[in-house]
Amino acid sequence: MFDKNLAQRASDNLKKVREKRPLIHNITNFVVMNYTANALLASGASPVMAHAAEEVEEMVSLAGALVLNIGTLTPEWVEAMLRAGKKANALQVPIVLDPVGSGATRLRTESANRLARELSIQVVRGNASEVLSLARKEARTKGVDSIHSVEEAQEVALALAKELRTTLAITGKVDLITDGKRISRVHNGHPMMGMVTGTGCTATVMIGAFLAVDPDALEAATTALAYFGLAGEKAAAQTKNPGTYQIALLDALFSIDTEELRRDAKIEAAR
Amino acid sequence: MFDKNLAQRASDNLKKVREKRPLIHNITNFVVMNYTANALLASGASPVMAHAAEEVEEMVSLAGALVLNIGTLTPEWVEAMLRAGKKANALQVPIVLDPVGSGATRLRTESANRLARELSIQVVRGNASEVLSLARKEARTKGVDSIHSVEEAQEVALALAKELRTTLAITGKVDLITDGKRISRVHNGHPMMGMVTGTGCTATVMIGAFLAVDPDALEAATTALAYFGLAGEKAAAQTKNPGTYQIALLDALFSIDTEELRRDAKIEAAR
Amino acid sequence: MFDKNLAQRASDNLKKVREKRPLIHNITNFVVMNYTANALLASGASPVMAHAAEEVEEMVSLAGALVLNIGTLTPEWVEAMLRAGKKANALQVPIVLDPVGSGATRLRTESANRLARELSIQVVRGNASEVLSLARKEARTKGVDSIHSVEEAQEVALALAKELRTTLAITGKVDLITDGKRISRVHNGHPMMGMVTGTGCTATVMIGAFLAVDPDALEAATTALAYFGLAGEKAAAQTKNPGTYQIALLDALFSIDTEELRRDAKIEAAR
Repeated sequence: MFDKNLAQRASDNLKKVREKRPLIHNITNFVVMNYTANALLASGASPVMAHAAEEVEEMVSLAGALVLNIGTLTPEWVEAMLRAGKKANALQVPIVLDPVGSGATRLRTESANRLARELSIQVVRGNASEVLSLARKEARTKGVDSIHSVEEAQEVALALAKELRTTLAITGKVDLITDGKRISRVHNGHPMMGMVTGTGCTATVMIGAFLAVDPDALEAATTALAYFGLAGEKAAAQTKNPGTYQIALLDALFSIDTEELRRDAKIEAAR
Repeated sequence: MFDKNLAQRASDNLKKVREKRPLIHNITNFVVMNYTANALLASGASPVMAHAAEEVEEMVSLAGALVLNIGTLTPEWVEAMLRAGKKANALQVPIVLDPVGSGATRLRTESANRLARELSIQVVRGNASEVLSLARKEARTKGVDSIHSVEEAQEVALALAKELRTTLAITGKVDLITDGKRISRVHNGHPMMGMVTGTGCTATVMIGAFLAVDPDALEAATTALAYFGLAGEKAAAQTKNPGTYQIALLDALFSIDTEELRRDAKIEAAR
Repeated sequence: MFDKNLAQRASDNLKKVREKRPLIHNITNFVVMNYTANALLASGASPVMAHAAEEVEEMVSLAGALVLNIGTLTPEWVEAMLRAGKKANALQVPIVLDPVGSGATRLRTESANRLARELSIQVVRGNASEVLSLARKEARTKGVDSIHSVEEAQEVALALAKELRTTLAITGKVDLITDGKRISRVHNGHPMMGMVTGTGCTATVMIGAFLAVDPDALEAATTALAYFGLAGEKAAAQTKNPGTYQIALLDALFSIDTEELRRDAKIEAAR
């Protein structure tokens, strides 16, 4: 069932991150900044957080990827994201967007949509409702409740990826990744990941790190999620408590070696 | 000495938090955001941090309680707190206020007073000098130094709670909680809690979580402080070092079960 | 090779921090706020984070030292830093500046230079390229690459310290500290410190804590870096994983006793 080529690719990407140590420029939320910076360091990448409109263009010019995360957004921060994103597009620096809470408030939904539509975004990572909130209004009003099966969810994601010309990475019990043509699924992960704040955001920055070394967005997102999910499994083998788990997850990101990832990545090439 | 009914109530409230997983909307300081989010998750509640004036009203409409914390305030953030608070009042979403550092600078004292007086606040949680700073100027000029006994402190708190029509939760070696009529005291807790930044703020968010499931503000605050204090004791049994303690405290919030809390809560119904 | 007087001074300074518990006012970046607050607490000092222009002057009046860190700067934050710094200068509250990322973007370089030149700064702590970015343009264009030896780096630092009338603390494998006349070197530390975000910023706040008890800026910076470096060594003896290391480092700051620091400080009085 699991794809050996993609498992090998995951291993290769992790090796490249550790060798090249790409600079990942984050414009992200206050809650997770410390944690995602440490997660990037643990993976081998090099984080920088910078949000001032006056410097984001210069900073992104130095970066291997740009992470945009609207978790504690204000309109000013969204403007800085757009400015950084346009520069990234001009320089072909890949962008990953995390539309945290999109669908919950109008500011979030509109901001996520502006970012997804005014920029060329390589990967959008969110849960199902966040990602679906990027569909046009007519589609959105149908709502998540109208989706009655995994197959239907998949068709919606395929169509939306095509429309937005991006790769969507919908994380959940099984992660679904699609670029509008291909579909992959990642079966790594552990329920305890939901007990630590910012694990979704950390999945996003891992995609950023892998995008910096792999130009195929679907493969970068897929392999990054396998790596992060495996770290989640490894940490869960250490502890059942969430404080300790938060720390064990960073340890696992660091200690997973490329051979281990090749062996234990559970990636399904679905289409 | 300790009240069995209130211990049972603590246990019941913890059970409800874990069953209902209330969304707690935080407008809080940058230092503790990650920690209090993780503490809420560990307790069973569901945290969201959102401070943009453009979205706080929508966000608080989804919430079971609102936490206002002025630890790294600016005038803009205070405006967002007032906006969120007015909406919370209109919707009867309970509010807990943490007047961090009130009394230390004019901005803090005035902001805390505006929040306490322009909004209907269910619980104010702070140390003695922060809470006393909410008294009117004439009372304030007397100052903390003028209070010569526990009994006198208690009388001042009773009068202030009555004046502000709120419940005051003054945390310290023994926590004092009063709504202007009733008084309770919580004897749980451990001195090591003072060695980790944001434990006061974490006490506050725990009150938020309990307020979301218990409409009696005095009982919600009292039982939340017993739960948090017990977690502090449990963590102190694990370690004498503050880094490890910070993590052990999150673990304890998660691992305390309802029976344990019923047994070990040290709550005194004083009046 | 190692100076016994300076080791004794390190021990004395740590003792004073633990006795006096100086309040350290931080205007710093979002990434490290929680960690540096906890590090200050672990060392014995008392942290406060406050950045609103409306209150920084009052807050710094209560402080034993002021920490300015531009890690996630905006022009507004730099204005608040200048305002706090001028008040600190007027009150003779010592200032330590961390020019995070200076040299990487124009906003950072210009802001660091304004702070270093418009204020009287007691210590600047950064890596070699950050500190060199404070040199005048003519000197800067020569660039880090033009420095071919440790001896040359030392001469550049001496001249820059003299020009800025400050103490420079350039941290790296060996830390170099100079006030333009004297030079000291600290040989404590461990490579794992580079695997946790904000360890540089934490070195800076430790200098702040020691400045609050030691008016000799060169000695305060030198002894603080020996203490922090020793904590890094001690933590590395506990673990090889970065998540656990982040926590072990806080534990070590707390558990190092004054006798241990006197014995294990590796300080060289080079000139």
